[in-house]
Amino acid sequence: MESGFARDEDLHRSLLGQAGGRARLNTPVLVVDLPALDRNIARMAAFAAAAGLKLRPHAKTHKSPDIARRQIAAGAVGQCCAKLGEAEALAAHGVSAGLLITSPVVSAPAVARLAALNLVTDGLMCVVDHPDNARAIGAAAQAKGKPLTVLIDIDPGLHRTGVTSAEAAVALWQVIAQTPGLAYGGVQFYCGAHQHIADLAERRAAMEERADYLRTVIAALSEAGGAPAIVTGGGTGTHRIDATLGVFTELQVGSYVFMDRQYLDCEFGLEDPYETALMVDARVVSTNTPGLVTVDAGLKAFATEVGPPTVLAGAPDGAVYRFMGDEHGALICKAGGLPGLGSVVTLGTPHCDPTVNLHDTYHVVDADTLVALWPVAGRGRSR
Amino acid sequence: MESGFARDEDLHRSLLGQAGGRARLNTPVLVVDLPALDRNIARMAAFAAAAGLKLRPHAKTHKSPDIARRQIAAGAVGQCCAKLGEAEALAAHGVSAGLLITSPVVSAPAVARLAALNLVTDGLMCVVDHPDNARAIGAAAQAKGKPLTVLIDIDPGLHRTGVTSAEAAVALWQVIAQTPGLAYGGVQFYCGAHQHIADLAERRAAMEERADYLRTVIAALSEAGGAPAIVTGGGTGTHRIDATLGVFTELQVGSYVFMDRQYLDCEFGLEDPYETALMVDARVVSTNTPGLVTVDAGLKAFATEVGPPTVLAGAPDGAVYRFMGDEHGALICKAGGLPGLGSVVTLGTPHCDPTVNLHDTYHVVDADTLVALWPVAGRGRSR
Repeated sequence: MESGFARDEDLHRSLLGQAGGRARLNTPVLVVDLPALDRNIARMAAFAAAAGLKLRPHAKTHKSPDIARRQIAAGAVGQCCAKLGEAEALAAHGVSAGLLITSPVVSAPAVARLAALNLVTDGLMCVVDHPDNARAIGAAAQAKGKPLTVLIDIDPGLHRTGVTSAEAAVALWQVIAQTPGLAYGGVQFYCGAHQHIADLAERRAAMEERADYLRTVIAALSEAGGAPAIVTGGGTGTHRIDATLGVFTELQVGSYVFMDRQYLDCEFGLEDPYETALMVDARVVSTNTPGLVTVDAGLKAFATEVGPPTVLAGAPDGAVYRFMGDEHGALICKAGGLPGLGSVVTLGTPHCDPTVNLHDTYHVVDADTLVALWPVAGRGRSR
Repeated sequence: MESGFARDEDLHRSLLGQAGGRARLNTPVLVVDLPALDRNIARMAAFAAAAGLKLRPHAKTHKSPDIARRQIAAGAVGQCCAKLGEAEALAAHGVSAGLLITSPVVSAPAVARLAALNLVTDGLMCVVDHPDNARAIGAAAQAKGKPLTVLIDIDPGLHRTGVTSAEAAVALWQVIAQTPGLAYGGVQFYCGAHQHIADLAERRAAMEERADYLRTVIAALSEAGGAPAIVTGGGTGTHRIDATLGVFTELQVGSYVFMDRQYLDCEFGLEDPYETALMVDARVVSTNTPGLVTVDAGLKAFATEVGPPTVLAGAPDGAVYRFMGDEHGALICKAGGLPGLGSVVTLGTPHCDPTVNLHDTYHVVDADTLVALWPVAGRGRSR
């Protein structure tokens, strides 16, 4: 429909492989540093292997079949997805084994699509936290003639999703065991609120307390006959702790591939830390105020719920970013030395998952060379 | 590429025209109340006509050729766009007359596309705030053989874009007048920070002070020979004030079509106010905690920078929404009475422009009937 109009996608494709091509991209663009991404993927794969844990990284972070394939090539057993639509997007691009949908799929049309996706993928799993939902999914899977594996989602105290007691877990397991069309796979226990406890010792103490609770739920399930084969959980903030708890069988870490500003605020105590691999390149579009320049990336280029982006390159030390509406931000540096009209600056993302969701394409770079364009295939797939 | 997978777009198309179809949409969905939208469009058109002002509504709000056409049918002279990409998206869908790009177009590839868009549209305009940018645009337009009309962007004190003094405005006018490929159209003066001053009398006083400054800039331009034919500005928050100032020739209001929570917090003093026409329908997906249910719309369904959405329908009075991550929110009501698993609730958007940018499709309803599906054609067009 838009074939009569020039789009910068054509320009960007023409820059592939050219040294200096990154600086000639139109802006704002979502940028991935490929060597840093690959080092992050290798670090986490080596950690999980050494810990004897499976790795099912969370695609809600990257929404990218290309990044999923790199994680799987490094040893991951599949991918987690927040919503059915993300799983469909991965499967449509050939990443169709070992997908786990980590939040309940409830609406009638989504349950029907879930059963359809189960037919064309290998090892699809979904969490459930309510008997009615378990029965609905079982009926849909049964009608399609292929059982679907479900995990019991256990609420770690976040009160987002999950059963809230050992008794409720056992009752739900009994429904699953009695429902045709369902296979029981185990449990999920994702401590979302624990990931960003900045102090490492506090984070460890909080996770150890939660692991004690998880063990009581697993004991009750096991006593009833529902010992879980899979115990999935963990995130970038807690994964080094989770691996020592002796209760998880796999990790569903996501943000480690990119490391946003939120996670850089967390203490990890690592000699070889995860690196910032995701950023936005923006361009200076107005320079009329002393100590301030305006760039072309604003509320539509960055998620805003955890504050502003950081300034990574292209501006003097001490320059800070301030949101200036949908399409703009200010770089402020009272000492001066700010970049001139048309200059490119590189900004670090405040929270990677919803920032990625604002963009259609990863511009994959190695230093100043554009080496690939990857679609954000799961962007907007919230249904 | 995804043809092998069921998508709910097909389901949603199949529900068009069916009474009760809205409740059967998969969720989360961006919903427009068509009668309320049309009343808002008619109210603003009548106001501008009575005030003797042209109306060039801002498409950064809706990003929709369908809504643009309704505004133009009601008398609007065209559309404002925040970025070149939005203007291209409108033009590609047949809305190609009277487009004004309200922020500077600076990068070399964008300047080339601007000159190309000028060839296939009628009356395209763009703002400039720097002599170098004016010369670059003039050279590109000249090379294409069709002059481009530019407006001088005047900074109202926001320090986002615009020249910052009468002297700078005159100097830029002189560059425009001397640059082949450019036609001088007038000035833009958009007081973004004034739109959300909650108290009407304070808002009026602040705008009157700013109008005094604008008059001094216009006087200096006029004395130099650059009297502006177009003086564009105004927003939903100030338009009733702007129309009394005797300085604007046209209004670039945007949010009035939808009326988000931010604007509902503003005092307007109108007997016949603008109505909430934009909302998100979400579904309850978890119900295991007393006084709280979880819905399937979170950070990826709503812009977050001005706080949470409001609860419009489907939950008891007093229920409030809390963000619970990328894909979820909690509805909290200690008194109980919350909706059950699978129930649909309707949420009001906190800030309409960046909320719309998170969605691909408007689900247009008249009461409980789905009457149209409109693409958010300008979504993500930040370049």
